[in-house]
Amino acid sequence: MAQEYTKRADDYSKWYNEIVDRADLAEHSDVKGCMVIKPYGYAIWEKMKDALDVKFKETGHSNAYFPLFIPKSYLSKEASHVDGFAKECAVVTHYRLKNAEDGSGVIVDPDAKLEEELIVRPTSETIIWNSYKKWIQSYRDLPILINQWANVVRWEMRTRLFLRTTEFLWQEGHTAHATKQEAIEETEQMLEVYADFAEDFMAMPVIRGRKTESERFAGALDTYCIEAMMQDGKALQAGTSHFLGQNFAKAFDVKFTDNTGKLDYVWATSWGVSTRLIGALIMTHSDDDGLVLPPALAPIQVVIIPIFKTEEEQRLIDEKVNALTKEMRKIGISVKYDNDSIKRPGWKFAEYEAKGVPVRVAIGPRDLANNQAEVVRRDTKEKTTLGLDGFAVNIKELLDSIQSNLLEKAKTFRSDNTHEVDTYDEFKRRLKSDSGFFLAHWDGTTETEAKIKEETKATIRCIPLETKEVAGVCMYSGKPSKGRVIFAKAY
Amino acid sequence: MAQEYTKRADDYSKWYNEIVDRADLAEHSDVKGCMVIKPYGYAIWEKMKDALDVKFKETGHSNAYFPLFIPKSYLSKEASHVDGFAKECAVVTHYRLKNAEDGSGVIVDPDAKLEEELIVRPTSETIIWNSYKKWIQSYRDLPILINQWANVVRWEMRTRLFLRTTEFLWQEGHTAHATKQEAIEETEQMLEVYADFAEDFMAMPVIRGRKTESERFAGALDTYCIEAMMQDGKALQAGTSHFLGQNFAKAFDVKFTDNTGKLDYVWATSWGVSTRLIGALIMTHSDDDGLVLPPALAPIQVVIIPIFKTEEEQRLIDEKVNALTKEMRKIGISVKYDNDSIKRPGWKFAEYEAKGVPVRVAIGPRDLANNQAEVVRRDTKEKTTLGLDGFAVNIKELLDSIQSNLLEKAKTFRSDNTHEVDTYDEFKRRLKSDSGFFLAHWDGTTETEAKIKEETKATIRCIPLETKEVAGVCMYSGKPSKGRVIFAKAY
Repeated sequence: MAQEYTKRADDYSKWYNEIVDRADLAEHSDVKGCMVIKPYGYAIWEKMKDALDVKFKETGHSNAYFPLFIPKSYLSKEASHVDGFAKECAVVTHYRLKNAEDGSGVIVDPDAKLEEELIVRPTSETIIWNSYKKWIQSYRDLPILINQWANVVRWEMRTRLFLRTTEFLWQEGHTAHATKQEAIEETEQMLEVYADFAEDFMAMPVIRGRKTESERFAGALDTYCIEAMMQDGKALQAGTSHFLGQNFAKAFDVKFTDNTGKLDYVWATSWGVSTRLIGALIMTHSDDDGLVLPPALAPIQVVIIPIFKTEEEQRLIDEKVNALTKEMRKIGISVKYDNDSIKRPGWKFAEYEAKGVPVRVAIGPRDLANNQAEVVRRDTKEKTTLGLDGFAVNIKELLDSIQSNLLEKAKTFRSDNTHEVDTYDEFKRRLKSDSGFFLAHWDGTTETEAKIKEETKATIRCIPLETKEVAGVCMYSGKPSKGRVIFAKAY
Repeated sequence: MAQEYTKRADDYSKWYNEIVDRADLAEHSDVKGCMVIKPYGYAIWEKMKDALDVKFKETGHSNAYFPLFIPKSYLSKEASHVDGFAKECAVVTHYRLKNAEDGSGVIVDPDAKLEEELIVRPTSETIIWNSYKKWIQSYRDLPILINQWANVVRWEMRTRLFLRTTEFLWQEGHTAHATKQEAIEETEQMLEVYADFAEDFMAMPVIRGRKTESERFAGALDTYCIEAMMQDGKALQAGTSHFLGQNFAKAFDVKFTDNTGKLDYVWATSWGVSTRLIGALIMTHSDDDGLVLPPALAPIQVVIIPIFKTEEEQRLIDEKVNALTKEMRKIGISVKYDNDSIKRPGWKFAEYEAKGVPVRVAIGPRDLANNQAEVVRRDTKEKTTLGLDGFAVNIKELLDSIQSNLLEKAKTFRSDNTHEVDTYDEFKRRLKSDSGFFLAHWDGTTETEAKIKEETKATIRCIPLETKEVAGVCMYSGKPSKGRVIFAKAY
């Protein structure tokens, strides 16, 4: 009998944990808040990295690497930055262990105390701008367009695999510019890069927007974000791009001579996405039977499972499948032939379903005789019979169709769960009955935002870039509003 | 006037630092012992990573990611392992900062002290075997073939860019096997992967060998290594592959049921190479004029520099070069066209020479008229004139020839600087007059090895795998020896 798994409708959070476990993506480690990303989960991250890295390079960025450790005094140089990160820092205070004199084991050597404590980077603006200071003298040294793939640590009390972990993997872009305008354009460009990646690769529609003041990155003048809707209607911030103004240049005294000979502080941006995207991917597409992956990010796009009784049958199927896989790989399809003879086909079907492999192909002796195969797509579970002539090309088309279907489905879901509300009563009522995004007028003040959050737990996810300015009145205060913003409960 | 740089013959160590600086590869950060890997240096690391990653995957390994932090008690579980790493550990003791009550700034919050200190991983055997314990029950769960690309920290007092830094980037493979034989085969296979990479990509010949007991990895039963000779005759350990026996399985109680139902401890290997390889690459090929890169790892393989006076000349050259670069990129050549009109050609020539770009092409109006270009190879500085018909294919051949020439040159250098010595007096004398590898008989004892090290600073780099066993007498003790080992001073 198949094991009973939790359904999304019954307990979304438990369902999520089971999906991660069944697909063998990651697990909690014994180190509080840190996860182990298992090979299949890491393979998805590699696909994401590769696609993003190409986009970063196409837009002129290079990768580099800066130290893991940040001296405490650096973190303190930008006032709001340290406020934002001080409460969740891993602090290195010593550099040596030694054997305890009483033989009880290994202890921290008190003689090896650091003069200045080091912080394990929660983000790298400070250590990077300390380097940029040495690299920038004139406008000819600008722009600097650097990205770093790295691990970062933010001490989290409540963690969830991929969504919120103490250590996570990410990329952080850090750019330096001669003009404010150029820095803003960079911030916006990288938001577009993220949005395109989310839609084209993750098949996850996103709202491009700006954060309110209270939700901005610590040290930014403006934070742009992409927000996605998960299947439970909650919002997930999937990527951010920050216009940092001259804050870090001022904190680290980074000035440059412009082309008129005038001295000015350098303009900055930073932008990042993390392994959190894997959590977003899971919660956008997966179903009660397991993970569902868009073909563009699936480590295995097609699995082929032979159905046979005799060795001779197996031999004949092997032969045909080897030709098919060769044909498929030639046009860039990632295919796995699982001809393990111990595990039964039914077990394999369930396994690859749980792992979200977009297309499953089964071939038995009768299929072979009819020059065809049984093809099941993971997204709709639709089963068809496909002729083996021109198989690779037809499978490629099917993968494309799955990719676009997943995006369309997610778009429809989002649109079905986006509601315009005009009064605070309606908002509170519908927050209980419906989930999703609520488009409402807001007076633009931090006070109103804070009160709504306190009373409803919903927050302003973003001020959408696409929204046309339409005058209205704030649902909470009745004061004038310039346009609707997105309220939602969020991860 | 060109700046005067240090020559290898005058001060090899200073020359090395200048090469790194002139090629803009890396710099020391303000964080003690940690380096900043700058874009051009990181681009070389990316080429290395990509090539190695393909080899790891071809040999059946998958990437995964384990936590940065290791609980102090884990590190202590394998006795010799903790002995080897305890003295150079970064220790996290707290997880929060706070504002000092006297307003003096940010301090470590004493209330946020960890119950158990965390060590920033110096290597990941312990944290990984703690996971493997959960993953392995039966022989059907084996082998586990995992690799991790990560940063690690070993607190170093004396650091040198790439060669020895407190934080460095590396990969660490960690495999688990059902039999001793299979684990040894894996250890040997990965040594071959490293040796092939060193020779085929880095154009750096290496000796495959085994470490003596005193030079083994802390926790290994056997450490295999590849050793390369730098231009100053010193040895550099470029990669290691460890047969760990059942040490970590025993320390973490990882047992499995074999196919006869018997319970046994799992067999292990680990293997790694690091950003140290970039230091090895520099010291194998570079000359007094700057970096020399083998084409297989050069971020830019070919640079094209236009020589022009008028805009019309520039336009005509641009047009031709655009066609040439397209042709070259089509066959996989990485080419940069530097048509910056502010910097002079002479400045560019020196710049790309310092950066080690394997081939420099210069094209002026007269070249254009003659349908040819001036081509200079970086390794020999040989200048030739090459016709523009079939240009890409000819350049490709030139790159291949540079790659093999660099390897041959390095092989010749190594062979010229490898000496057989039979008496300790001769050894000591030649250590002063010659540099390089000294092949000598050794009695196999740790005592003799230690005495020779103490008296001469030369160490046994490895017991070469290729050496045939030839009886002899130890140059130090006069006791019987099974064959010659390699003594050298080392990085």
